[in-house]
Amino acid sequence: MENDNALRYPIVAVNESATKHLMDNVKGTGQSTIDGILRATNVLIAGKNFVVCGYGDCGKGVAKRAKGMDANIIVTEVDAFRALQAVMDGFRVLPIKEAAKIGDIFVTVTGNKNVIDVEHMELMKEGAILANSGHFDAEVNINGLRKIAKKERKIRPFMDEFTLNNGKKIFILGEARLINLSAAEGHPSTIMAMSFINQAFACEFLVKNKGKLEPKVYVLPPEKDDEIAKLQLEAMGIKIDRLTKEQEKYLSSWQEGT
Amino acid sequence: MENDNALRYPIVAVNESATKHLMDNVKGTGQSTIDGILRATNVLIAGKNFVVCGYGDCGKGVAKRAKGMDANIIVTEVDAFRALQAVMDGFRVLPIKEAAKIGDIFVTVTGNKNVIDVEHMELMKEGAILANSGHFDAEVNINGLRKIAKKERKIRPFMDEFTLNNGKKIFILGEARLINLSAAEGHPSTIMAMSFINQAFACEFLVKNKGKLEPKVYVLPPEKDDEIAKLQLEAMGIKIDRLTKEQEKYLSSWQEGT
Amino acid sequence: MENDNALRYPIVAVNESATKHLMDNVKGTGQSTIDGILRATNVLIAGKNFVVCGYGDCGKGVAKRAKGMDANIIVTEVDAFRALQAVMDGFRVLPIKEAAKIGDIFVTVTGNKNVIDVEHMELMKEGAILANSGHFDAEVNINGLRKIAKKERKIRPFMDEFTLNNGKKIFILGEARLINLSAAEGHPSTIMAMSFINQAFACEFLVKNKGKLEPKVYVLPPEKDDEIAKLQLEAMGIKIDRLTKEQEKYLSSWQEGT
Amino acid sequence: MENDNALRYPIVAVNESATKHLMDNVKGTGQSTIDGILRATNVLIAGKNFVVCGYGDCGKGVAKRAKGMDANIIVTEVDAFRALQAVMDGFRVLPIKEAAKIGDIFVTVTGNKNVIDVEHMELMKEGAILANSGHFDAEVNINGLRKIAKKERKIRPFMDEFTLNNGKKIFILGEARLINLSAAEGHPSTIMAMSFINQAFACEFLVKNKGKLEPKVYVLPPEKDDEIAKLQLEAMGIKIDRLTKEQEKYLSSWQEGT
Repeated sequence: MENDNALRYPIVAVNESATKHLMDNVKGTGQSTIDGILRATNVLIAGKNFVVCGYGDCGKGVAKRAKGMDANIIVTEVDAFRALQAVMDGFRVLPIKEAAKIGDIFVTVTGNKNVIDVEHMELMKEGAILANSGHFDAEVNINGLRKIAKKERKIRPFMDEFTLNNGKKIFILGEARLINLSAAEGHPSTIMAMSFINQAFACEFLVKNKGKLEPKVYVLPPEKDDEIAKLQLEAMGIKIDRLTKEQEKYLSSWQEGT
Repeated sequence: MENDNALRYPIVAVNESATKHLMDNVKGTGQSTIDGILRATNVLIAGKNFVVCGYGDCGKGVAKRAKGMDANIIVTEVDAFRALQAVMDGFRVLPIKEAAKIGDIFVTVTGNKNVIDVEHMELMKEGAILANSGHFDAEVNINGLRKIAKKERKIRPFMDEFTLNNGKKIFILGEARLINLSAAEGHPSTIMAMSFINQAFACEFLVKNKGKLEPKVYVLPPEKDDEIAKLQLEAMGIKIDRLTKEQEKYLSSWQEGT
Repeated sequence: MENDNALRYPIVAVNESATKHLMDNVKGTGQSTIDGILRATNVLIAGKNFVVCGYGDCGKGVAKRAKGMDANIIVTEVDAFRALQAVMDGFRVLPIKEAAKIGDIFVTVTGNKNVIDVEHMELMKEGAILANSGHFDAEVNINGLRKIAKKERKIRPFMDEFTLNNGKKIFILGEARLINLSAAEGHPSTIMAMSFINQAFACEFLVKNKGKLEPKVYVLPPEKDDEIAKLQLEAMGIKIDRLTKEQEKYLSSWQEGT
Repeated sequence: MENDNALRYPIVAVNESATKHLMDNVKGTGQSTIDGILRATNVLIAGKNFVVCGYGDCGKGVAKRAKGMDANIIVTEVDAFRALQAVMDGFRVLPIKEAAKIGDIFVTVTGNKNVIDVEHMELMKEGAILANSGHFDAEVNINGLRKIAKKERKIRPFMDEFTLNNGKKIFILGEARLINLSAAEGHPSTIMAMSFINQAFACEFLVKNKGKLEPKVYVLPPEKDDEIAKLQLEAMGIKIDRLTKEQEKYLSSWQEGT
């Protein structure tokens, strides 16, 4: 919207803060996605082919948690570097058309639409489970599925069974809406505390700079991440080191040690 | 009971089957304990000091899953070899009196009683969470706690807050009954399929040997584990290798290669 | 040999001790196999398809360590339950003929012969690396390979390149002898301390029972494992809990709590 | 140097490329540090208190690999957010003065000096092992150690024993120079291929822009990371997805789905 000059007021992109996207997206989405899938299905995750569509912060978090539950992780990606990261983290990377054939559980975390489309659903195994943890219900083409499905019925509170034309049954969790919000309770409070304080700092920034800001996207300065991290560590009773004067001088200079 | 000649009829100890105790206890209890804690509390597990009391099959499963959620694991044990295994698996091993002071979440999986006793609760940090996933509600001395607590109130469906004499509040999940049964849905069906088929084989064994068995404890032969494992692999569409004749001969002989 | 009445003197099967096979085979072989492969090749393990042939104690150890290096693990097995364990630990299980086509690094830990045979080598990718960490050099059919190879040359001290008939080159590490002994330094001293003390206890047992033993296979009693584990924990400065009298009574009785 | 106007010619900071610092620093340093420690010591890493000083890219890599070897990880940091990341990754975070007392193996990866100083060495346990994998030999104050040590002797090729005034012995690996270069073979070729191609692109950039650049620090554009990642995936035979036109439109627009 900024590029299109469509913003009518200043915005603070809180998600850019490290204490937001490296905590909320990775650790929050990681845990709460697994939580949502378990509450919706009570399925054993160990030994399952667990397909994570998208390997950004959320995808990394979900993949790590599913690995921690002893699933066999498969990642699909459109970005080469993220795909390479997934490979180097020990995961299989496959095009969604290949992953669709072998996956037992699918989670979309891309921020895109129709990442799992009807053509992929038609390739799936009997009993495949689909959940979305990334964005709106656009990531899984549930509207397309409804058009081709022979039958739809509710199995459990957040688990709907769709019978495809080929006779196979697949399951959509939480109507393909955010699984951690639909079937579980969203992120734990420790995570939300960090996300909300970022929002509080953003409000403070907007108020303090009232009248001086352009209709653009702003980000909070790194000092705020530092402040939030210090508060969080203090709350957990964790102490860290401080640079000595000698070390500060060493870090800021380039004459020594090179 | 066998040792005391107190058995009045033959028993099959299904838990001795590998497809029971190495699956149900490790993988089943591992996942469903985390599941129960999440449903009861929605607490972030990452970064928590997660104390596992007992490092048998269930304890190993719970510790691995909590580690997979990025908790910092502390194990308490009375058995030296199990304690050593915990150390060699990368976990801190502490006496319960030390662990009590630093733990955020405690899970008992010992099969014993008063593993977390009132004296340990009095050492705990404000907000400590206690759950039992091992046995009856005897593992956590909740009766003792009730006697000394100044106040008890329900915070969430399976989460009770107890205010101690020292003013600190601790939380007991699911009345210290099995957390996966009280707050979650027990083991996933894949696990129960393996446990139940062991029970079915046990019934078959008892029926086929009617009148021939003594009032003793029997275990199923390893061939049954093999049969169950084959059925499970087949259900998952997984193929394995077979020994060649040359390999069978090599394995059964001692003349070659030694 | 016992079954064939071929033993001429009593034997203590030290490998049956928990402090031997659950430490030496799992933790010792796990680390030293990775160590041997790194010294022989300096190859990046992250992102590789790492095939572990055999999922016994040694195979479990090797697979866990390769996973810890972010490899993508594939297991081959002839035993259904072990195969199922590998699946439930999050690994792909494939017949060796399928694994041969996609593996980057292969490690045999089976105790069998020709587990990787010439027909499998002919299916391998250019640059595949083969190592044995289980038994004698019989696990990889290196003699068969020598018969069909067009060319053999030493690339590095423990790395030999074989050019197959199909033009592809594969690498054998340490002449397919135990990779941790050929290319590295065997097990670390902490591991050997536990293995050797088992051997010392075995010698003590044989001397103390001189003249009373039959030419059979004996195992050390569990109390020795307990003693060794206690010594090891003490050396590491680790304290554990002791059962209270009340707990001892609870464990030995069957009247209470059931 | 740029801030001090001390640069005399343009520089390309290759380390800023994702295919450099998220691969070389994390995966390269991670593996090769463990490799160096093993070659220098042959010590068992499982069960050790493994202290990682610094939780930047290199520290994250080293900690993950040591965890993968079943060490118990302790992180020291001066930066609050990195410390918080370490906590949320399941590691203990302690001031170096506390970590010094309980660590078995120490690795410095900070880019700073005297991170492990003489006062910390004097707190260490008998047999503590110190290695540096971050920067010059300045990270561990080896000169200070030499001044106070009662005795110094070489134990193995890259392992020197120092006897302190308090009578305890500690070990310095590879003279506290980069352990992966001193005791092992540096990074694996897969890692260096990505680092070197970044350098090649940097040279190309400098040549193509000859005469047009100021004496400043430049970074390669993200497209180069994408190009390198694609080449690496292709070399590994890995295929990824491409955005559909519909998806490209969705991502670039803000009208839909919000």
